[in-house]
Amino acid sequence: MRTFRLVIACPDGVGIVAKVSNFLATYNGWISEASHHSDHQSGWFFMRHEIRAESLPFDLEEFRQAFAPIAKQFSMVWRISDSAQKKRVVLMASRESHCLADLLHRWHSGDLDCEIPCVISNHQDLRSMVEWHGIPFFHVPVDPQDKQPAFAEVSRLVEEHQADTVVLARYMQILPPDLCRRFAHQVINIHHSFLPSFVGAKPYHQASLRGVKLIGATCHYVTEELDAGPIIEQDVARISHRNSIEDLVRLGKDVERRVLARGLRFHLEDRVLVHDNKTVVFD
Amino acid sequence: MRTFRLVIACPDGVGIVAKVSNFLATYNGWISEASHHSDHQSGWFFMRHEIRAESLPFDLEEFRQAFAPIAKQFSMVWRISDSAQKKRVVLMASRESHCLADLLHRWHSGDLDCEIPCVISNHQDLRSMVEWHGIPFFHVPVDPQDKQPAFAEVSRLVEEHQADTVVLARYMQILPPDLCRRFAHQVINIHHSFLPSFVGAKPYHQASLRGVKLIGATCHYVTEELDAGPIIEQDVARISHRNSIEDLVRLGKDVERRVLARGLRFHLEDRVLVHDNKTVVFD
Amino acid sequence: MRTFRLVIACPDGVGIVAKVSNFLATYNGWISEASHHSDHQSGWFFMRHEIRAESLPFDLEEFRQAFAPIAKQFSMVWRISDSAQKKRVVLMASRESHCLADLLHRWHSGDLDCEIPCVISNHQDLRSMVEWHGIPFFHVPVDPQDKQPAFAEVSRLVEEHQADTVVLARYMQILPPDLCRRFAHQVINIHHSFLPSFVGAKPYHQASLRGVKLIGATCHYVTEELDAGPIIEQDVARISHRNSIEDLVRLGKDVERRVLARGLRFHLEDRVLVHDNKTVVFD
Amino acid sequence: MRTFRLVIACPDGVGIVAKVSNFLATYNGWISEASHHSDHQSGWFFMRHEIRAESLPFDLEEFRQAFAPIAKQFSMVWRISDSAQKKRVVLMASRESHCLADLLHRWHSGDLDCEIPCVISNHQDLRSMVEWHGIPFFHVPVDPQDKQPAFAEVSRLVEEHQADTVVLARYMQILPPDLCRRFAHQVINIHHSFLPSFVGAKPYHQASLRGVKLIGATCHYVTEELDAGPIIEQDVARISHRNSIEDLVRLGKDVERRVLARGLRFHLEDRVLVHDNKTVVFD
Repeated sequence: MRTFRLVIACPDGVGIVAKVSNFLATYNGWISEASHHSDHQSGWFFMRHEIRAESLPFDLEEFRQAFAPIAKQFSMVWRISDSAQKKRVVLMASRESHCLADLLHRWHSGDLDCEIPCVISNHQDLRSMVEWHGIPFFHVPVDPQDKQPAFAEVSRLVEEHQADTVVLARYMQILPPDLCRRFAHQVINIHHSFLPSFVGAKPYHQASLRGVKLIGATCHYVTEELDAGPIIEQDVARISHRNSIEDLVRLGKDVERRVLARGLRFHLEDRVLVHDNKTVVFD
Repeated sequence: MRTFRLVIACPDGVGIVAKVSNFLATYNGWISEASHHSDHQSGWFFMRHEIRAESLPFDLEEFRQAFAPIAKQFSMVWRISDSAQKKRVVLMASRESHCLADLLHRWHSGDLDCEIPCVISNHQDLRSMVEWHGIPFFHVPVDPQDKQPAFAEVSRLVEEHQADTVVLARYMQILPPDLCRRFAHQVINIHHSFLPSFVGAKPYHQASLRGVKLIGATCHYVTEELDAGPIIEQDVARISHRNSIEDLVRLGKDVERRVLARGLRFHLEDRVLVHDNKTVVFD
Repeated sequence: MRTFRLVIACPDGVGIVAKVSNFLATYNGWISEASHHSDHQSGWFFMRHEIRAESLPFDLEEFRQAFAPIAKQFSMVWRISDSAQKKRVVLMASRESHCLADLLHRWHSGDLDCEIPCVISNHQDLRSMVEWHGIPFFHVPVDPQDKQPAFAEVSRLVEEHQADTVVLARYMQILPPDLCRRFAHQVINIHHSFLPSFVGAKPYHQASLRGVKLIGATCHYVTEELDAGPIIEQDVARISHRNSIEDLVRLGKDVERRVLARGLRFHLEDRVLVHDNKTVVFD
Repeated sequence: MRTFRLVIACPDGVGIVAKVSNFLATYNGWISEASHHSDHQSGWFFMRHEIRAESLPFDLEEFRQAFAPIAKQFSMVWRISDSAQKKRVVLMASRESHCLADLLHRWHSGDLDCEIPCVISNHQDLRSMVEWHGIPFFHVPVDPQDKQPAFAEVSRLVEEHQADTVVLARYMQILPPDLCRRFAHQVINIHHSFLPSFVGAKPYHQASLRGVKLIGATCHYVTEELDAGPIIEQDVARISHRNSIEDLVRLGKDVERRVLARGLRFHLEDRVLVHDNKTVVFD
């Protein structure tokens, strides 16, 4: 079922829902899903509607024009998208295959509703796997002494492939600040710890050293500050003294895959609204 | 914050949200929480609003009158309640204290927003605990040869105390069909298994025999068919071969308490809508 | 680290651990992992040791001869295996790729320590995926009118490839009783429900109809009675009224994959002991 | 069933299990539970046996004498306890009742196998609840300007009541270093976050600010460094944008109670071995 997804954030007040739902009812819009959230701390209101596209007399552009006065009246930060226009997601990976293989399989079996115009990696290891899926693979090695050319190339590839979203599927390189800013809330990372615990490198080693009883993974938008962006999704797995660091790495892979796949799905379905470095996720 | 809770179920269609939110906006109602659900299988629409009571020019009765024409137009099954009018919950227990003690503690510490006019039990064991909380305790023994008088007395006590809700906190007796019918969707039970597994007696023994790796508990509305009413909440706990039946009983208590407390809270906040022996829970 | 895995079940009594550990100490065996379980209900004792292979003066056959008298004395059901002799696992699938793709990826990335001599399917859909991994794929269609020839061929392929273990990775066909008997405790199935709930076909439809709040998956050994064999591993995922049957199927896939992979790993590492249709899993 | 619990940590090597199990077999000791762990990182070996007391010709003191030579030979850190000699646990609380009420109820209903000689609090709020359980309550107010006298009194009460274990059931005061040292691995705290995230004050506020999707609780031994002692048990609960800080506090209570009760149970049953600021928990 093709839907339009109307996503709104604005200062809270009386009459917002009425105005928006009236607007939709006026045009005979059939709401298939609606979510609201009043954040009492920030005083903001968040809202997401899925409307059956064929019930509306609009295309996206006409919708935007018709809705603009309401958006203006309530100082809305808003967007509308068409479920039939698949988001374009560039995947980036390094040598570890588990997250990439998982996303590719979900996409291949039709469970991940997006286009994957290409995969970019700083290593060649995963080329064959990617190409078996019929997806172009670009090898962009990163010179530790001078990373700038690599990131310029990454940036060029992302633009050339008209990506809406970049997923760091265990890419293992820190993106430069200008890239983070340019693609704000468009770059999704999976960090292999339960943030804010164990920021930075080798979180499973840190976890083993601290003797925690659960390990976790965190899917978040990338910002300039390392591992500090808005969190989309998290989960954990139970471990014990019996587990070596190698076990943690292996057990953690399952959590990482699951958390990244869930977080990306929320993003692709326009279920994530960012406000003040936190997310509202209408799951 | 005092709120009115407007809970609606009706056949799905265009314009319902608009009509309701218009109605609220017309009277300047400040929506603090809103939830919607379109059930594609049944073709029904479910909706719950919390509206700040002081933003409306109504009391409950006036609200009902003003809203009635809309409800009629859309064939709504609906109710409205006032968060300031606490629900009256009669607790029933037998000899096991864990669920009762948990609910009493939550109530006593202000985490369970209701009144508890009395506790009814077929045994005397828990009298002192109940009375320490300042709650009347009624001992209504059940004669296995003739249960009717006991249930007549239970019924009388429930009515005398003007209960909205009855909670079977491990009461261990099966309510007679007429009681189930009379208090439909008002009697909440905690069953000590992950239903529909292990219906009936001694579910932990059944679980041990089958060798399952998780045990569970189910909070549901009581209907005439044993352990088959609409499920409100469920959860599980991991077990292993190391656990004896006594361990399962002990570990299960934690799950039972948690699941019952969550299910009851949903009920008390008017978050549960029953349709076709299933629930919509706007958590 | 190459290890010998000594797995023992016997009637409980005094001196078993002493006898076995003495035996190992006599030959200077370095125990890297040891697990014990006394089952008070059945009166049986279960035990698993991993011993560093290079610390022993034995090969497997010599170990068997030296240990036989002890085994006889305590009426042990026992086996010993060498971690360097990888188990041979034949995977069987139908059209759904998620479990198969997951196992193949784990194997390919070195996280699943076994050999996969071939994959058998009653459909052609997954051939290319299997062959990309360098594994032979056999298409054995099952004629609904006469399934016997297909299962004879399956049986032949399993023997020809000298399989220790057969995994039904959503194979969707019921194995005939003689195959179940012949490969007792060697055939692992993943059932897409939290058994014993929803035995048989279309468990997600059954789950949706019953309105449960969690769905699950069960990894078990196949026996003649459908979905009733010894359970190796189970897990669940939370669902809500918002989830359609299609969502349950999708969400369930993640649970199925995880549960099957864990259960198979336990099996491959000789961590599962079956007794009276229940399992001891030394995880 | 009365058991002796023999708990051992020592440098790993060949023959330890043989020596210990031989010793037990020599005296006809019936092992009802045995757990072993070889830690490859530290090179240490950990071991716990439960032996049926009536199967041994010893009392504890005789056991200690007979076993001492073996302990010396392998440089064991070890202890033996008698399940019939209940540990003496002093509970400390402040104003929040949830952890205290939970432990008292478990104790009262026979699920927590210990003696509770007294409860100490810096406030009077929970006196009545404690005294209903028949347990002495001591009010030791803490003067923020001079805490020393209060902690001297706490120390005196702990000694006077011959406590083995002190549980900080949301005590909300930081113990002075000398107390931490004196009762090393005897003082158990529940911290209301998933450590090492959100060390220190107001962890739920910190969690809300960071926008995490799970909150947690950590049961650990108290050491001089705040919230940095060996972790015994942890768990988490899922939250969302819908949850206010008050919700986190409320939802967190359930996690805290569960984690503290589990951690304390492990401790009481001598299942926790501390080594290098980490724990081995033979659950």
